[in-house]
Amino acid sequence: MAIIEKHKFQPNALARSLVNKKTGMIGVLFPDSSNMFFPEVFGGAERAAQKLGYTLFLCNTFSDYNRESEYLNLLCERQVDGLILMGGRINSRHCPPSLVQEVVDIQRKIPIVLINGTLPGHPCHRVKTDEYLGTKLIVQHLIDRGHRQIGFLGGSEVTTTTVEKLQAYRRTLEANQLSYRNEWVRMGSFSMSCGRQLMEAFLTMSNRPTAILCINDYVAIGAMKTAISRGLRIPEDIAIAGFDDTQLSSAMNPELTSVSQQSEQLGMQAMLILSKLIQKEKVTKLTVLAPNLIIRQSTQ
Amino acid sequence: MAIIEKHKFQPNALARSLVNKKTGMIGVLFPDSSNMFFPEVFGGAERAAQKLGYTLFLCNTFSDYNRESEYLNLLCERQVDGLILMGGRINSRHCPPSLVQEVVDIQRKIPIVLINGTLPGHPCHRVKTDEYLGTKLIVQHLIDRGHRQIGFLGGSEVTTTTVEKLQAYRRTLEANQLSYRNEWVRMGSFSMSCGRQLMEAFLTMSNRPTAILCINDYVAIGAMKTAISRGLRIPEDIAIAGFDDTQLSSAMNPELTSVSQQSEQLGMQAMLILSKLIQKEKVTKLTVLAPNLIIRQSTQ
Repeated sequence: MAIIEKHKFQPNALARSLVNKKTGMIGVLFPDSSNMFFPEVFGGAERAAQKLGYTLFLCNTFSDYNRESEYLNLLCERQVDGLILMGGRINSRHCPPSLVQEVVDIQRKIPIVLINGTLPGHPCHRVKTDEYLGTKLIVQHLIDRGHRQIGFLGGSEVTTTTVEKLQAYRRTLEANQLSYRNEWVRMGSFSMSCGRQLMEAFLTMSNRPTAILCINDYVAIGAMKTAISRGLRIPEDIAIAGFDDTQLSSAMNPELTSVSQQSEQLGMQAMLILSKLIQKEKVTKLTVLAPNLIIRQSTQ
Repeated sequence: MAIIEKHKFQPNALARSLVNKKTGMIGVLFPDSSNMFFPEVFGGAERAAQKLGYTLFLCNTFSDYNRESEYLNLLCERQVDGLILMGGRINSRHCPPSLVQEVVDIQRKIPIVLINGTLPGHPCHRVKTDEYLGTKLIVQHLIDRGHRQIGFLGGSEVTTTTVEKLQAYRRTLEANQLSYRNEWVRMGSFSMSCGRQLMEAFLTMSNRPTAILCINDYVAIGAMKTAISRGLRIPEDIAIAGFDDTQLSSAMNPELTSVSQQSEQLGMQAMLILSKLIQKEKVTKLTVLAPNLIIRQSTQ
């Protein structure tokens, strides 16, 4: 008993749960609560968790690597049964190897599922929507509507998903014998205000795109608002498309064409796969969901 | 050592942290990740937590009482330093006493801060925006714009915040010698689709309101979309106002007049007060934030 006292041993729920090595707890890291895409994803994960008998601890990292590390360490200490990761280091093109290694080390002890991301050089379980295909669908739709001058707005070149979309955009143009022009590609960030600013720049060009593909719905809405404030009609004067099909896209007027990543399904699938990993079942490394092009008023 | 082995005692981080009775962890219960208001609030709480050296575990309850109990018990077992509660039982007019008692019992051991809610019959630390005043501001604004027929759309009569807003609506009308009419008050839920449906009903009335106050931005946007699809101009034919000033309100076209609850501030204040309670400092029971009326195109 002296040893127990000295080391503050606790016969608590956590210790008891170790008998069957199961706490029923899952940690979920996500980067940005102000982008509805993420709450939609973890809403789906929560629904699946409830059915499977798990509880989720959601951790808002703001894509801050230090905060990610803090939450990862804390969740491991609390002995979660598994982890779901979104955003931050798993979407960075230039992620320091030590940060990748941190996740790899944890993965040796605890099952991890990544949503729309990778750990470069390390195999891991991933769930993703095919954003390459989603981009291709939307560019082809704009071409089919008669557009020959198509711009690309928003995102960041240090983000893997932006690079993937840009590649799909470029290749789809080229497959249709349309030229890729640097001045029609403008990056910045993922926010509505970025969309507003970048659109201002487009509108000053003498030879500007007639249709614009935006990195997400937020950038698209910013772009729409600038266009409308300048008296342009959408889609007659300029067609605008978003990405993610968040609840914002159908709320807009005109309603916004977008690509559904099946955000709720992404969360559900990640939780389902994680629960199989926890039960030591075999699961394929990569699960890809098909994107859906949702055509609305802003492009037709 | 036999005792240690038999009872699975663990000299873990949790046990160590008990020396200074501080795990640095806060549990946050919230009801609905699909309503941007809540991600905005816990985004604010996260920013404050980061500065104060706390980590937040966010728990999505879908306002399901059982799920709330599960998370409450789990967070207590994990020995969080404090809890922040939003939605669910603390906003219910007919909450079973046993569910109130559950929170009261936890409060004896762990500091709790409620956001925009109460535990009927029990004193507790609360942070809220003055929704009564917010509603009064918006009704008075509509009256000042010349409206004499003002409707009230959405919400639920079993929710305390709806009842408070309805009371403010009624009293502000009466203070302006305008009559309160039952047929101009239509409740349902808090969703965009509810706003669409209830607006349909309004538009069939021969003597319908010229301005409508909606329970939140989602209902307002649903109402706007129905009105626009019927060829009505906003605000010329019908003025529409929302509540919460989520990012949706400025995204809309026309932009939506709304009442800011200072959602990020709500979260920050709750975290600040909770940290003081954890440090055993004296804090006033009730902290009220002033709402801001944000006048945009939809009402003027």
